[in-house]
Amino acid sequence: MPLAPLPEILIEPLVRQALLEDLGRAGDLTTDAIVPPDLAAKAVMAARQAGVVAGLDLARLAFRLIDPAIRFAALAADGGEVAPGAAIAVVEGPARGMLTAERTALNFMSRMSGVASATARLAAAVSHTKARIVCTRKTTPLLRAIEKYAVRTGGGSNHRFGLDDAVLIKDNHVAVAGSVSEAIRRARSHVGHLVKIEVEVDTLAQLDEALAAGVDAVLLDNMSIEDMKRGVERIGGRAISEASGRVTPETAPKIAETGVDLISVGWLTHSAPILDIGLDAV
Amino acid sequence: MPLAPLPEILIEPLVRQALLEDLGRAGDLTTDAIVPPDLAAKAVMAARQAGVVAGLDLARLAFRLIDPAIRFAALAADGGEVAPGAAIAVVEGPARGMLTAERTALNFMSRMSGVASATARLAAAVSHTKARIVCTRKTTPLLRAIEKYAVRTGGGSNHRFGLDDAVLIKDNHVAVAGSVSEAIRRARSHVGHLVKIEVEVDTLAQLDEALAAGVDAVLLDNMSIEDMKRGVERIGGRAISEASGRVTPETAPKIAETGVDLISVGWLTHSAPILDIGLDAV
Amino acid sequence: MPLAPLPEILIEPLVRQALLEDLGRAGDLTTDAIVPPDLAAKAVMAARQAGVVAGLDLARLAFRLIDPAIRFAALAADGGEVAPGAAIAVVEGPARGMLTAERTALNFMSRMSGVASATARLAAAVSHTKARIVCTRKTTPLLRAIEKYAVRTGGGSNHRFGLDDAVLIKDNHVAVAGSVSEAIRRARSHVGHLVKIEVEVDTLAQLDEALAAGVDAVLLDNMSIEDMKRGVERIGGRAISEASGRVTPETAPKIAETGVDLISVGWLTHSAPILDIGLDAV
Amino acid sequence: MPLAPLPEILIEPLVRQALLEDLGRAGDLTTDAIVPPDLAAKAVMAARQAGVVAGLDLARLAFRLIDPAIRFAALAADGGEVAPGAAIAVVEGPARGMLTAERTALNFMSRMSGVASATARLAAAVSHTKARIVCTRKTTPLLRAIEKYAVRTGGGSNHRFGLDDAVLIKDNHVAVAGSVSEAIRRARSHVGHLVKIEVEVDTLAQLDEALAAGVDAVLLDNMSIEDMKRGVERIGGRAISEASGRVTPETAPKIAETGVDLISVGWLTHSAPILDIGLDAV
Amino acid sequence: MPLAPLPEILIEPLVRQALLEDLGRAGDLTTDAIVPPDLAAKAVMAARQAGVVAGLDLARLAFRLIDPAIRFAALAADGGEVAPGAAIAVVEGPARGMLTAERTALNFMSRMSGVASATARLAAAVSHTKARIVCTRKTTPLLRAIEKYAVRTGGGSNHRFGLDDAVLIKDNHVAVAGSVSEAIRRARSHVGHLVKIEVEVDTLAQLDEALAAGVDAVLLDNMSIEDMKRGVERIGGRAISEASGRVTPETAPKIAETGVDLISVGWLTHSAPILDIGLDAV
Amino acid sequence: MPLAPLPEILIEPLVRQALLEDLGRAGDLTTDAIVPPDLAAKAVMAARQAGVVAGLDLARLAFRLIDPAIRFAALAADGGEVAPGAAIAVVEGPARGMLTAERTALNFMSRMSGVASATARLAAAVSHTKARIVCTRKTTPLLRAIEKYAVRTGGGSNHRFGLDDAVLIKDNHVAVAGSVSEAIRRARSHVGHLVKIEVEVDTLAQLDEALAAGVDAVLLDNMSIEDMKRGVERIGGRAISEASGRVTPETAPKIAETGVDLISVGWLTHSAPILDIGLDAV
Repeated sequence: MPLAPLPEILIEPLVRQALLEDLGRAGDLTTDAIVPPDLAAKAVMAARQAGVVAGLDLARLAFRLIDPAIRFAALAADGGEVAPGAAIAVVEGPARGMLTAERTALNFMSRMSGVASATARLAAAVSHTKARIVCTRKTTPLLRAIEKYAVRTGGGSNHRFGLDDAVLIKDNHVAVAGSVSEAIRRARSHVGHLVKIEVEVDTLAQLDEALAAGVDAVLLDNMSIEDMKRGVERIGGRAISEASGRVTPETAPKIAETGVDLISVGWLTHSAPILDIGLDAV
Repeated sequence: MPLAPLPEILIEPLVRQALLEDLGRAGDLTTDAIVPPDLAAKAVMAARQAGVVAGLDLARLAFRLIDPAIRFAALAADGGEVAPGAAIAVVEGPARGMLTAERTALNFMSRMSGVASATARLAAAVSHTKARIVCTRKTTPLLRAIEKYAVRTGGGSNHRFGLDDAVLIKDNHVAVAGSVSEAIRRARSHVGHLVKIEVEVDTLAQLDEALAAGVDAVLLDNMSIEDMKRGVERIGGRAISEASGRVTPETAPKIAETGVDLISVGWLTHSAPILDIGLDAV
Repeated sequence: MPLAPLPEILIEPLVRQALLEDLGRAGDLTTDAIVPPDLAAKAVMAARQAGVVAGLDLARLAFRLIDPAIRFAALAADGGEVAPGAAIAVVEGPARGMLTAERTALNFMSRMSGVASATARLAAAVSHTKARIVCTRKTTPLLRAIEKYAVRTGGGSNHRFGLDDAVLIKDNHVAVAGSVSEAIRRARSHVGHLVKIEVEVDTLAQLDEALAAGVDAVLLDNMSIEDMKRGVERIGGRAISEASGRVTPETAPKIAETGVDLISVGWLTHSAPILDIGLDAV
Repeated sequence: MPLAPLPEILIEPLVRQALLEDLGRAGDLTTDAIVPPDLAAKAVMAARQAGVVAGLDLARLAFRLIDPAIRFAALAADGGEVAPGAAIAVVEGPARGMLTAERTALNFMSRMSGVASATARLAAAVSHTKARIVCTRKTTPLLRAIEKYAVRTGGGSNHRFGLDDAVLIKDNHVAVAGSVSEAIRRARSHVGHLVKIEVEVDTLAQLDEALAAGVDAVLLDNMSIEDMKRGVERIGGRAISEASGRVTPETAPKIAETGVDLISVGWLTHSAPILDIGLDAV
Repeated sequence: MPLAPLPEILIEPLVRQALLEDLGRAGDLTTDAIVPPDLAAKAVMAARQAGVVAGLDLARLAFRLIDPAIRFAALAADGGEVAPGAAIAVVEGPARGMLTAERTALNFMSRMSGVASATARLAAAVSHTKARIVCTRKTTPLLRAIEKYAVRTGGGSNHRFGLDDAVLIKDNHVAVAGSVSEAIRRARSHVGHLVKIEVEVDTLAQLDEALAAGVDAVLLDNMSIEDMKRGVERIGGRAISEASGRVTPETAPKIAETGVDLISVGWLTHSAPILDIGLDAV
Repeated sequence: MPLAPLPEILIEPLVRQALLEDLGRAGDLTTDAIVPPDLAAKAVMAARQAGVVAGLDLARLAFRLIDPAIRFAALAADGGEVAPGAAIAVVEGPARGMLTAERTALNFMSRMSGVASATARLAAAVSHTKARIVCTRKTTPLLRAIEKYAVRTGGGSNHRFGLDDAVLIKDNHVAVAGSVSEAIRRARSHVGHLVKIEVEVDTLAQLDEALAAGVDAVLLDNMSIEDMKRGVERIGGRAISEASGRVTPETAPKIAETGVDLISVGWLTHSAPILDIGLDAV
């Protein structure tokens, strides 16, 4: 099944709000002053770097919301790899609207493609193992849904979307509960049957306690490679294993080779640089 | 005059929306299950890296909107430099709310502090000249106001906030108008008396044409250091000079030494990594 | 751990919108005409029927949003059982605001208490078994969060909150995929590691297929009591078992005695009558 | 004149919000995983019980907002009676969108049809008299406009829509004013010439006072059948007469036979069960 | 009973939106640059013309939403007459917030006071008769509620608030229906019992038809003074009589002397000049 | 370049909100009751006075948002002068929607055309000079963008749009700073390079100080004609000159003849009467 697009009803408010943020109260002074209303134009959206494309629907919407007469023909699909200089889309129609919507379209696409490209690089680094790259809740405020989508686009998988769709017991929760097992017990008695429970453990002793209590997943936090290996062995398939802690393309392969199921990386969404994408008049 | 804070009426909707994005429909399942409602806690927000702090008001608001009983005492001010491990704020009050709001507070602060820190690094690199670092419209969708603020916090200055508060004539506009001078003429006859006009020029010939037509500022785009120097000489104080084009901390000093007034850097807002900030229970 | 309240940031928009719906453009004509602005009043919110109370925070908010000077002292807690005539809360303060907010406060409380009371009745009917009562997505549009909360208040548990927090494979999905196992395979490869997968099965053959493919939960849809029993045996603890299909207080005990873990009831949220609650001036 | 539809500008925000409530942050995980994007489907929306249909425009909108390519052909009209099994509409188009929007469409239609059907039953019970069935302000928060519409669809009439479109003087208002006549006097001097005034009376003495003061309508609250009859006689056409107080299909005929113009029933909107409606793939 | 204030829940969104409209993305550049954050100030809001004050609650809210530390002490009440130079309120607190909110506060107050003052002038012109001045639906878009309130403040009365709170049959409706009486018949059978029906009539023949059909009010549109007098006689108290058509303070007395109950004036809300009000530092 | 239209994304929310304000909860009772759903109609929007038209896009949107089947054919363009009785647009389609949207469409057009017409009158009065008419921030709350547009439509120019797009140093700011030059110094060091600085001066001494400090524009506030002339001479082209203070069509020519560049007039947006426009059935 190909990657499912985000429903337009979810992304339209974001694109609309971003356009309004750029238009302010008076709109595009420069373009309104200089470009005749009936001038037509054609432009190519092109990558200036190699990477993975994400966000075509948002770029299309940015142009459409400014002027429905603008045609946006994608030459790539979200998730596609592009070489430097590769054309991603052809945009054609009234020149005014194209110039007015350009920056908003590019701001969405370059940021989402940046996240997708970073994810793809990490995914490639661990592709010789079964490990998958997952993101965290360290996302850009207000953009979580599209950043999580960009991670999927880059070949990664999503951790929970918020505080309400899964339980993740962290060190502070354990401290309050008194023990890993008591924290798990409380969580299980509180949540519905379709909510999974994951526990963050710092030591193998905590891991044993979590496995004994029964959990869906364990997060091996900042463990040494050696401890991770031992942890994966002890888990023995009884829970999903996730590793976290300052993962880089360099350290990822070793972490993946410990046998963990998942490697979570906050950097993907909080610090990945954009993919440089431009719009060139034809 | 110290840096002016953003009015709460402007930032409250962002913080509220970010909290709702994280809470989803059911709130913080983990904390609700494990942490008793009457448990009090105390935590320190601390920098894990050296950098410049920005966003304290948004962090304070995140906690307050979840529970007004949480007290947030800042130990630093926006714009202050922090060393690794330095305490930024003390947060005290009901433990539940603190755990629920923590990630949203940190997501705002770490991102804004990342922008401020990157700006400060660049500003330091050119501090031996009169050049100032400015940002662009390549900002995170929906977060332009707080990213522009973070740039100011880091010692930078702001370019226009959107399409409506200044005219910036780019190559496409010049192409449509037929010449730099015609584009300037159209802009001047269109806009109000409090709107400045800046023109992007690629060559010294275009620069001469712009200066002859009279503009408030010129953007020397992707010029060689040599051409920039000549450009600044020709301008001779008749317009504000701005340089742009893939500026890095390494290239910035040379660019600044050409005598330009401003160096604009998209990277500050589209690709600066976060400043790592955490919340540690006491 | 007592039932966790809904965060005010989640419920305030609902209460505010409901008040605006009632106030219209001109506010409370009757009260404004008749009641002097400085008149104080005291009233008791009382149950007119036996039931379980839910929604006190929304009622309190309704009064506070109209006039912060109104004091709302709860005499019961959400989840508490009340007898006919029992006082639930004392409301005191400016008479105008109390009369203006009364209907909105009662509309929330009586509806939520109706859901809680219906849930409690069903939960009591199966309390001799391990079965829990759960709700569905057949909720009142726009009120899902508070109806799910009301179900918890009545002693029930929550099924998924929407289309995005768990997978529920229904007959149509199976038909498209070609088989139960193919549907499960597609779901597993698509979703993140913290998303559970449940499958609706109509026959024991489908159940066997689901169990072989491995799922977190199975929904035995409209099966005979006999088949349910057999189904529970075959599951043998390998998945959570859920029964559904026109459950009533009369049929619930027999269904529960089959050994299923959960009984889901759409009626709780789409058709439970309100609990009659009134506000009586003292 | 046939029943006028609700303007789309009024109902679109409700349908949109309900869809977003169901989609959450990530959309329809199950359908996205299992159903190919290009699969077409056809389904019939059918009643599972006899009743009166209401809400077709909202159902149509739910499908259209998810995918404009879905065609929704109504086979009935709002207000039409349907037999068990009767087809109400044919829905055709992309299977994904149909599955994603289905629950929201049905949640609106079944609830509104439930209100319409309950109204129709009561209206039938008094059809041998001139009495009309009217609803109250005891509506579902946020859904008043569509519930009032559903009441009209079922052959009922609408009481006031909120606190601002008519005056309804209740016992508390009378208590504050000191007398029925003083309350009426205050109301009349306060409101505009197009605002009607109705007074709730508990006794025939109060009724006489109200009639002497001159009102547009009187609400005979919880009176005995005998008193109601006397009340109607005394009114003698000088005001509209309304009866209220725990009306059921059983008691309604007797109440109607007293000669009252209106019988108001809160139950229609706060406790009527849904009309069971399903969507069956063809 | 004194004039009832508008509920804060109704006016707060307007004031908030107006402040955001003025603050834009970056706030008050001038004040932030020049005024120290800790400077306190005191100012007097004063009328520069004689008139009637309206909108004090909105002015107070404008200051409070910018800075809750600003104190706003009203020296007059809505509806009070002020002489030129009269102090209306004293504002005290942080100078920054006072300067930032000043224009928004004054924009609301001067506009609303302008409407109130114009109403008061017209009301005075007909005070020797029983006629009341009423407004129309020709209000400023988005400000209807506060303009209708301003009319009440000036001693006027309100016509309907919108299309949904009363029936007003105009010439086009009559043309469609075929006759005044058929239009009235259709309206009566369509609307609820608390909705009044008014008909616009151009001739005495139409008036007779309307009275025969039975209506709550008749609008004598653009009739001669002579015809109005005859109209009022024919009505003989059977309906409320309203006159309209380019009313001025000069023509109003003659119209009022015809005996009509109401004189409606669109000019009050669409063209009344503001009352000049300023804020002077002390 | 012809006047640029406002982007639809900016004006649609205003028109939508205005329609909802008029529709209330129940829509157009009168039209729904009387006009058959399938009746077609044709009407002409016509000026009842001479003036300048503005707001055609908002009128078109009002009809389209109520019913997309309504066709709106403009016979004039924004900025066009119309004679009394002149047709502005032809509206054709379903009669119901036309009647329902009519008032909202006219409320926008008549108000905006009123502002445009007033501006045009003043602009004509000074057309023998180089002076331009500009508006202020004394606009109708929530309607600033469309009122500023209407001023442009009438041949005027726009002052700043809010507090954030330019610096305007007023007497209070000067008082706080201690001097005009210190206020200018603070402003310059605070704002970005594309923000202009204007200073309000009351005396020629202040003017000299401002010119010495260097500003983009000076506002000669309430000066005598004689002083204005001297002021313009002293400025000698070094700054833009603006005159303000109770300008009328009578006083404007003399002010303009002093040689000022701009004359600002708050009256245009806070007190200009509407242009009377009606919709006549054909």
